[in-house]
Amino acid sequence: MAWQTTFEIRSRGRGTQEITQEISGVAAASGIACGVVHVFVQHTSCSLMLCENADPSVRVDPETLARRWAPDGDPASRHNNEGDDDMPAHARSILAGTSVSVPLANGRLLLGTWQGIYLWEHRADPQLRHIVVTVTG
Amino acid sequence: MAWQTTFEIRSRGRGTQEITQEISGVAAASGIACGVVHVFVQHTSCSLMLCENADPSVRVDPETLARRWAPDGDPASRHNNEGDDDMPAHARSILAGTSVSVPLANGRLLLGTWQGIYLWEHRADPQLRHIVVTVTG
Amino acid sequence: MAWQTTFEIRSRGRGTQEITQEISGVAAASGIACGVVHVFVQHTSCSLMLCENADPSVRVDPETLARRWAPDGDPASRHNNEGDDDMPAHARSILAGTSVSVPLANGRLLLGTWQGIYLWEHRADPQLRHIVVTVTG
Repeated sequence: MAWQTTFEIRSRGRGTQEITQEISGVAAASGIACGVVHVFVQHTSCSLMLCENADPSVRVDPETLARRWAPDGDPASRHNNEGDDDMPAHARSILAGTSVSVPLANGRLLLGTWQGIYLWEHRADPQLRHIVVTVTG
Repeated sequence: MAWQTTFEIRSRGRGTQEITQEISGVAAASGIACGVVHVFVQHTSCSLMLCENADPSVRVDPETLARRWAPDGDPASRHNNEGDDDMPAHARSILAGTSVSVPLANGRLLLGTWQGIYLWEHRADPQLRHIVVTVTG
Repeated sequence: MAWQTTFEIRSRGRGTQEITQEISGVAAASGIACGVVHVFVQHTSCSLMLCENADPSVRVDPETLARRWAPDGDPASRHNNEGDDDMPAHARSILAGTSVSVPLANGRLLLGTWQGIYLWEHRADPQLRHIVVTVTG
């Protein structure tokens, strides 16, 4: 049995936005008690990730690190048609991934106490992002 | 059809511990022949990963690299309430992920000959880690 | 309900090869309308990833970055029995992952317009790679 829905979210440019509530709502609406909730973003320049949901600074520091992992305006980069943040956005999506899967029990996400689900926008400017949620069980 | 169980494992601080046997046992116990085994850790400061299971040094070198990817005691870091290894642990979990999914056939994990499943603890001190295994098929 | 198949692909050494068509074909053959397509490579020295499918340079730059993330012939590396690219290949597979999961709707992969599925070979020399595709729905 599988249940699927899609939704859109407008990012605010680089940074994270929590979507745990949206995904919890989808999980409950699925009517599936036990299984896995697969969350997928249909883009290659942003990520979905699990991160601590308590101290907001835990989602600021990854920006600092990511600028080292894939520097903006890297002179060695060839893919820069859309600007200095173009290739770094793709490289970050390769590193952090574009989907997360969370177990489902009794119709609720089996997240740890400090886990939240986040859209991590890698482009400098706001973007409209399409997310597909599939519940299998 | 889905089958789910949870177990705990006490890490020994930074480093890897193989959990392939535990996951194989869960897969067999599920009674599901064909599907996917989803393994999820309910924390944001450790990882689950697939890694070579032959030469132990292949699981030592990633520690060396990870100290470059996210240095302990980084002066640029803001999230350090729990010590010099606090933010690096979260950053490593973003990079290496907190879940793995392995195909299941005839009730057995379809791992390659050299693939093992590992808990990778990113905190310096030992921690109690909660793992959720969901088999869908 | 689950459906599974395996196929082999010979890589050409370091670099990417698109396998979107192969995975689309498997999805259609499964007869499953709605669910998740799980693609898994049975090795720890290559990756499966989603990446932009338009400008080929977007798949060249990650090679440049990956040589920084995990340098070949790193003097700090201990796992180098198979050469200077041995440990870097494992490190890259930890970073970029060895599986991707894509939602399925009406028997078709729900990829974004610019998303393709790629085998990313991390070893310098060509390798025979085994891929397992499992569709659950």
